[in-house]
Amino acid sequence: MTYCVGVLVRDGLVMVSDTRTNAGLDNVSAYRKLHIFERPGERLIAVATAGSLSLTQTTLSLLREGVPNPDSGELEVLEQAPTLFRAAQLVGHALRLVRAEHVPAMRAERVNTEVSFLVGGQVAGQPMRLFLVYNAGNFIECGPDTPFLQIGEYKYGKPILDRALMYDTDPMDALKLGLLSVDATIRSNLGVGLPLDVMVLRKDALLAETRCRIPVDDPYFRDLGERWGAALSAAHQAIPRPDYG
Amino acid sequence: MTYCVGVLVRDGLVMVSDTRTNAGLDNVSAYRKLHIFERPGERLIAVATAGSLSLTQTTLSLLREGVPNPDSGELEVLEQAPTLFRAAQLVGHALRLVRAEHVPAMRAERVNTEVSFLVGGQVAGQPMRLFLVYNAGNFIECGPDTPFLQIGEYKYGKPILDRALMYDTDPMDALKLGLLSVDATIRSNLGVGLPLDVMVLRKDALLAETRCRIPVDDPYFRDLGERWGAALSAAHQAIPRPDYG
Repeated sequence: MTYCVGVLVRDGLVMVSDTRTNAGLDNVSAYRKLHIFERPGERLIAVATAGSLSLTQTTLSLLREGVPNPDSGELEVLEQAPTLFRAAQLVGHALRLVRAEHVPAMRAERVNTEVSFLVGGQVAGQPMRLFLVYNAGNFIECGPDTPFLQIGEYKYGKPILDRALMYDTDPMDALKLGLLSVDATIRSNLGVGLPLDVMVLRKDALLAETRCRIPVDDPYFRDLGERWGAALSAAHQAIPRPDYG
Repeated sequence: MTYCVGVLVRDGLVMVSDTRTNAGLDNVSAYRKLHIFERPGERLIAVATAGSLSLTQTTLSLLREGVPNPDSGELEVLEQAPTLFRAAQLVGHALRLVRAEHVPAMRAERVNTEVSFLVGGQVAGQPMRLFLVYNAGNFIECGPDTPFLQIGEYKYGKPILDRALMYDTDPMDALKLGLLSVDATIRSNLGVGLPLDVMVLRKDALLAETRCRIPVDDPYFRDLGERWGAALSAAHQAIPRPDYG
């Protein structure tokens, strides 16, 4: 399992991804699921992945080596996509090529073949954008009404985002809420776990402001969880008890 | 869809259920999913249901009319079950009989046949108990380490319970947390909706302390959601921003 969340607020883009993969409960590993394609000052495209690791890794390799354009036959690499929209198209196109090659044999083995991607970032002179690419290569775009997209085990971490996240939330507060969303997921699903990979890209900076791995023993993340638990406890105790008689 | 939660704390049992059913988004109705079998002062057994309404209703009717005992051939009704353990067994047994009759034809129509039940309560002189009966009629029992069980659309409402609910939580606080858990679910899933049915049974009272329907426009429930939203907002703003550089 996996949990990745992308947040697109007015002043920036936040991407948070866990690193846990598992093929059964007895085969648990850590793999990077947040990948950054960049030319500082010119563009940054971040891709987060969920689902079958073989399919997502192969798709990413193809996006690095070049996806053959069905019309011209030329190879297009993700790093040079002229727009974020074209980046999302390329991810979908690469995914369809990879699925066509591998999925029939995987289905015969009854292996899970579901995958999804978050594709977000900015090209100089264009707006920041964030897309969710589905299994079939089709995609949706994040908008200000619901300024986040999730992939993987998304349900546990959705209420906190539904409640607290708005389009005018500061990017660093959005990162905090993203981490709380991951924390809620980790507490409920063993398939999601630390370390985490995070990236914060402020609007028009074209260079990640924060880009790091949060390790298992990270003091801020631990403190965040403890403070949040204490605050929730105080919050529900401060609400009057029901009196329905 | 459905969401029901049962909470078994030291001093009582709480059951909360929504009432929304849907066969597609264009066929949404309200049906009772929380059913109480009682003899005041002697016993109270509450049953909450999720999944195929035809299967759960038919199972409940059988439990009222009497389930044939496979050994003696005598009819056993849920209201007279000598223990809560026997009540859970009876629900599972009735469910298997109903499934054997209806599921093959339903599967041929590709209709969803998944169901689950919460069975909780107390018989005089015995401890309070709470069970979750699965689709196959097998069941698990709630224990003090995780003092709640959920059926239906459970993921959105689980983090608040994981965080805040403990075995020594007061039953009325447990009801409050159960309602917050339902509120989180309603906000994220259109298949779960008001009105709600709630029941609070204090230990050894053998008569429900609270037993009512919370209507769509209930002022306490609305106020609860508003207070909770404001408290969460204040809580996350009070936590320092991450500074991962």
